[in-house]
Amino acid sequence: MLEAKFTEAGLFKRIIDSFRDCVQLINFNCSEKGIAAQAVDDSRVLLVSLSINVEAFEEFRADRNIVLGCDLTNLSKILRCGNNSDNLTLIAEDSPDSILILFEDTKRDRVSEYSLKLMEIETDFLEISDMKYESYITMPSADFAKTVRDLSQLSDSINILVTKDTIKFAAEGDIGSGSIVVKPFTDLDHPENSIKVTIEKPVDLRFGAKYLNDIIKGASLSDTITIKLSEEAPALFQFDISSGNLQFYLAPKFDEEE
Amino acid sequence: MLEAKFTEAGLFKRIIDSFRDCVQLINFNCSEKGIAAQAVDDSRVLLVSLSINVEAFEEFRADRNIVLGCDLTNLSKILRCGNNSDNLTLIAEDSPDSILILFEDTKRDRVSEYSLKLMEIETDFLEISDMKYESYITMPSADFAKTVRDLSQLSDSINILVTKDTIKFAAEGDIGSGSIVVKPFTDLDHPENSIKVTIEKPVDLRFGAKYLNDIIKGASLSDTITIKLSEEAPALFQFDISSGNLQFYLAPKFDEEE
Amino acid sequence: MLEAKFTEAGLFKRIIDSFRDCVQLINFNCSEKGIAAQAVDDSRVLLVSLSINVEAFEEFRADRNIVLGCDLTNLSKILRCGNNSDNLTLIAEDSPDSILILFEDTKRDRVSEYSLKLMEIETDFLEISDMKYESYITMPSADFAKTVRDLSQLSDSINILVTKDTIKFAAEGDIGSGSIVVKPFTDLDHPENSIKVTIEKPVDLRFGAKYLNDIIKGASLSDTITIKLSEEAPALFQFDISSGNLQFYLAPKFDEEE
Repeated sequence: MLEAKFTEAGLFKRIIDSFRDCVQLINFNCSEKGIAAQAVDDSRVLLVSLSINVEAFEEFRADRNIVLGCDLTNLSKILRCGNNSDNLTLIAEDSPDSILILFEDTKRDRVSEYSLKLMEIETDFLEISDMKYESYITMPSADFAKTVRDLSQLSDSINILVTKDTIKFAAEGDIGSGSIVVKPFTDLDHPENSIKVTIEKPVDLRFGAKYLNDIIKGASLSDTITIKLSEEAPALFQFDISSGNLQFYLAPKFDEEE
Repeated sequence: MLEAKFTEAGLFKRIIDSFRDCVQLINFNCSEKGIAAQAVDDSRVLLVSLSINVEAFEEFRADRNIVLGCDLTNLSKILRCGNNSDNLTLIAEDSPDSILILFEDTKRDRVSEYSLKLMEIETDFLEISDMKYESYITMPSADFAKTVRDLSQLSDSINILVTKDTIKFAAEGDIGSGSIVVKPFTDLDHPENSIKVTIEKPVDLRFGAKYLNDIIKGASLSDTITIKLSEEAPALFQFDISSGNLQFYLAPKFDEEE
Repeated sequence: MLEAKFTEAGLFKRIIDSFRDCVQLINFNCSEKGIAAQAVDDSRVLLVSLSINVEAFEEFRADRNIVLGCDLTNLSKILRCGNNSDNLTLIAEDSPDSILILFEDTKRDRVSEYSLKLMEIETDFLEISDMKYESYITMPSADFAKTVRDLSQLSDSINILVTKDTIKFAAEGDIGSGSIVVKPFTDLDHPENSIKVTIEKPVDLRFGAKYLNDIIKGASLSDTITIKLSEEAPALFQFDISSGNLQFYLAPKFDEEE
């Protein structure tokens, strides 16, 4: 049996909203460690990986491994029915046909109870091994989101170029070109505004703007984003939650693709 | 001659906005008692009944009974032209072809004057006799509105089940099911947040979600809604204004209809 | 070489937004006096004339006359990429193929640099001679905008009738008619709320509502609008900026046109 209680329904709602536009069906794998999920987007280019650790829940109990196959459009319809400040509890039997979603408005003695039908979704859960990256960036997620949205106006590709002293985002299209340069700095009063760069060697990688626009929906989960880049492996874009994270893996574009 | 002055144009605007989506044409019957109107929605399932008593007006004068047949789309276009805080005066001759709508912004010496063409609309004015209901609910109108919107995500029917201790709203559809349970309670500091239930016998009735979604537009008129339910008669959903009310009568769905 | 720096990108953005819906292509003529531009709308009825004087810039340098032919849709895409509070600098060579647009967020050491391709646009720059008008109005631009929007609900023509004591806006259409009357007054505390009328003789002119709706987009530039009317010449609608202005010239409609 699974019983997983979030103090605030808003957190789970924001998590699901962060990737429901690029992924339709997903298996939530519930175990004693928490809830994990993985899926690739419809074009099979973007890999989404979610981990919500036990500590992120107010209460958590999973007697054995349980798989919840969900249609995210339907799940999200139901999540919209709760208030962000409600308690949210997910309840499922060991081999469930459906999942119970409970919203409690503790201030007003109002309980809403939804049952969502589950689906059998065929998919492999990939163990993603720790990859070696050549370049690490941490920056405010809102800045990254604005940068991606702005440059998407110009082109369907965005370059990220990292050197020791600067991060440069650039795009070139029919109407002109654009580049945005930010520099590492430390904001002691508001550490979440700081920009950190750690590099082994400079990188210059190009990504599909469409996928970056999917990724930035995660900005509602965290004030900062961590980006790990390598010439040899898919880049990792990570948003941390209180205990756990949402990761997007995206392979760079190479010139021959275009 | 009719001369009916609202202190705030916003009130009349909100009244009209409460039912202009489900009713296109309506006769406003003006008499010494105030303004009353009745109409059924296009599918002839929902009956709307409006009473604005003389006391709701800053000034009111109706020498004889006057009928104003209005196209609500056009009336609402004109009402959008006033500011909510303007004075609003309706002026009509005894057998009018058109109605004069006057907005006065008293602070700034700005007068807007509109003339709306009237129509002859054939309709009977039903005297709705006081019906006997088995169950009475008063609850915050915003809560009722959210409940209806939420459950409409799941199904095109919503059940309302009232017992002595609980009101349960429920819906069942293809993706799953949902139920929202609220309990009577008294909020002395904010009486408008209280939930009251008076029942003679428990009822369990099913309504078309489409019509409930029309009804909840009245929530902008009043902090509370009163719902009167019976197995034998159309349910009554009522929003009170300062003096008068907007009522919706909706017959329950029976299983054979589906 | 041109180098023109606005303290706030928001000003240039608002200027462009004020006429980009009615004009697609425009030449910005840069000289030692500042930046000027002129264009007619697609239907060749509305003439837009912009002057940004040197004093409106934080820094300004134009070694010789430079013409920047811009597609406003593209320019506006790029302007959306800056924050309103950023510094904005326009940089161009003497015979430029493209213009450099620089946003600097001085608080956060973030520089965005865009290059927009220019176009050769054939057009004559009209020297508009000072015309003699019979009637001058100054009024709050927000009031004028609301008046135009409101009356547009009723008709595709709006009359402006000015006498010594009143300004009357009127429209007549299929569903009815409307008129809005404002009177001159002086608000000493908030002079921008004042309404001034100076007339040599009363005028009663009719304008296309479509064009007036284009003009009121300039209301974001200035708290007041100045309107100059004559039976003999196109009316002038003017929004002043800190140093310079945006002018719209619109010929009245005559009955034979309709």
